[in-house]
Amino acid sequence: MIAFTPSPPYYAVIFTSVKTDKDSGYAEMAHYMEKLVINQPGYLGHESARSELGITVSYWESLEAIEGWKNQLAHRIAQEKGKEQWYASYRIRVCLVEREYGFPNT
Amino acid sequence: MIAFTPSPPYYAVIFTSVKTDKDSGYAEMAHYMEKLVINQPGYLGHESARSELGITVSYWESLEAIEGWKNQLAHRIAQEKGKEQWYASYRIRVCLVEREYGFPNT
Repeated sequence: MIAFTPSPPYYAVIFTSVKTDKDSGYAEMAHYMEKLVINQPGYLGHESARSELGITVSYWESLEAIEGWKNQLAHRIAQEKGKEQWYASYRIRVCLVEREYGFPNT
Repeated sequence: MIAFTPSPPYYAVIFTSVKTDKDSGYAEMAHYMEKLVINQPGYLGHESARSELGITVSYWESLEAIEGWKNQLAHRIAQEKGKEQWYASYRIRVCLVEREYGFPNT
């Protein structure tokens, strides 16, 4: 689903990843993180797609909200497992969304 | 491939889309756009994934570079075809990338 976000400015975190072939436990953790993140303070929405590359973009009210999610305890454990096992490589880009438009026109 | 981008600040355009089932000509146009964009002034890289949702993030030196690509003639024709036929809906978010980090650490 395309995320329904408020008028800019707000923040986006672009998480781009390449997975290893060690998939054990990944789907469960991803599902659990999706359930957790929606209750995180300052969370606005997220979008996800995976083919060769995985891209997840999450949207946030503020840098403080992003920091809060980064440091959330279960999420920190997931991050460690990710580096140990699931991800061959990833990039995280923290961005200020300045402008947004779409189709059908809104 | 994860895009290799310079130190922030630079710009990102997050293009999130839901396709229709009218796929005719889409793959050819997407392939042609990928060939064109890499020669566009101010282009820094892009990343793409599609499952239920499609997400393409392109990276740019400046807002002027983004505007240049938006108005590129063949790209404008592709945008029109996209609205007529290929996309049920999409959102475009123009963002200033403020911070970037990754794994393995860089």
